[in-house]
Amino acid sequence: MIDPSLIAEEFRRDLAVRVKALPEPLTLVGFLATDSAPSLTYASYTKIGCDDVGIRFEMRNVNRHEIEGAIEAANVDPKVHGIIVYYPIFTVERDRYVKDLVDPRKDIEGLHSFWARKLYHNERHVDGDPAKKSILPCTPLAVIKLIAAGGVAPKGKSITIFNRSEVVGRPLAAMLANDGATVHSFDVDGPLLFKYGLEEDTKITREAALAQADIVITGVPSRSFPLVQAAEIRPGALCINFSTLKNFAPEILEKASTFVPRVGPMTVAMALRNTLRLYENYHRKGRA
Amino acid sequence: MIDPSLIAEEFRRDLAVRVKALPEPLTLVGFLATDSAPSLTYASYTKIGCDDVGIRFEMRNVNRHEIEGAIEAANVDPKVHGIIVYYPIFTVERDRYVKDLVDPRKDIEGLHSFWARKLYHNERHVDGDPAKKSILPCTPLAVIKLIAAGGVAPKGKSITIFNRSEVVGRPLAAMLANDGATVHSFDVDGPLLFKYGLEEDTKITREAALAQADIVITGVPSRSFPLVQAAEIRPGALCINFSTLKNFAPEILEKASTFVPRVGPMTVAMALRNTLRLYENYHRKGRA
Repeated sequence: MIDPSLIAEEFRRDLAVRVKALPEPLTLVGFLATDSAPSLTYASYTKIGCDDVGIRFEMRNVNRHEIEGAIEAANVDPKVHGIIVYYPIFTVERDRYVKDLVDPRKDIEGLHSFWARKLYHNERHVDGDPAKKSILPCTPLAVIKLIAAGGVAPKGKSITIFNRSEVVGRPLAAMLANDGATVHSFDVDGPLLFKYGLEEDTKITREAALAQADIVITGVPSRSFPLVQAAEIRPGALCINFSTLKNFAPEILEKASTFVPRVGPMTVAMALRNTLRLYENYHRKGRA
Repeated sequence: MIDPSLIAEEFRRDLAVRVKALPEPLTLVGFLATDSAPSLTYASYTKIGCDDVGIRFEMRNVNRHEIEGAIEAANVDPKVHGIIVYYPIFTVERDRYVKDLVDPRKDIEGLHSFWARKLYHNERHVDGDPAKKSILPCTPLAVIKLIAAGGVAPKGKSITIFNRSEVVGRPLAAMLANDGATVHSFDVDGPLLFKYGLEEDTKITREAALAQADIVITGVPSRSFPLVQAAEIRPGALCINFSTLKNFAPEILEKASTFVPRVGPMTVAMALRNTLRLYENYHRKGRA
């Protein structure tokens, strides 16, 4: 069993050293336009994480009808290096519009379609500069770092993912495929196969996909999802759950090599890491 | 009662003359990635409309997993002047990603966030060139042309809209507010008020909004929507329905000044008009 908060702690220690060495206060602005409990929780974890690594975090509570202007003001404010917006605010489609209002150079969650396009095209750098790495979305990146912490390299592996949201499951499947894995992605619309640069329909069953998977990743926010059972997985499989609900039966521990029951603390660590990366890419004096 | 196909016919006649005068075949490519009936219908109407005005229409049937590469190929093909993609293909959020893959300079439906931003910021021209008009989404634009055909100018008017989708109702509300109207926008999440450059929560009731509306626009795709009754509207109000379902009670005809029962033919005409506009803005030799 891997506790993600211990891995996140390692990343935060490294970040704290690097942030301290910067020539100016690294500043992240968070926009809260609702009082939804998950948004408030995520915002408070962002604040705690920022305090821990020495990033200046400024929370801005805004009326949702003023979020666009507030983002645009932060986009052009040279004292603001990173922006995080707590969704959902409106409908899925309108929130997508808001995501694309954030300047990609300040988008610490990598949600702008500029970054999504980089991800799906496996373009790992910007401006053709190997020193400027692309921004990847926080939870998929967190899962990939946890796979590495579990001692497994995705290349050549079979991976099964339950979740194909645009925010986590689909980018994660594409990222793992970019790293050389064969990924079976399940959601309510059925399975898809992801291989390097390729996404296609497949007829594989849950049973067959799980039986061959070296890595099983779950993120199903529904109690009606049949928990992944020990009998379904390969002996020694690496199992990771990023849902806030349990998606694995408890007996999984007896058969998995490693089980990561939650990802949250690593997601926040990756958001902080992206903040520093954007600063290095675009905002540090003498660059950009 | 205004028949939108007669107004659309006027626009098509004008377009036919202008298309004929172009130095090369104006070419529109349509991407069909599903066999959903509404998409097939819209595609066939696009084809009929193109034939009528002299635009070369090329339908491309693609596997939905190949839509991204197909769009990108059309983006860089100088023989293709316009692109239309028939949605829905994936989920709302993933379709939003696909919409932003179309080069805005070929996006005849004005769905790219580049054009959405122009609309919400009331930027009516591109490149600071008054000869290059912004592209507006087809159905909202169609409704605005039908309001003009009904002999009403939005400036200073009170307008009530039932529908706040990102594709029609919300951009339409913003466009009418940009033209100087006070717009009450209703959907399942309640009413919003749109005024010039402003969108905010309001507590107005359906009854109060309808009682003061000079123009009533409906687009509710649900049979449980209580039909707008003659008793609810002002004498002489202009009433327009863009839903495929009836949203007004038949007696509305006795009280409205003008009733437009459907918008579809005008939507197609506006798509053709946008195709020509994009050509003039970006693709005509000696421009762009």
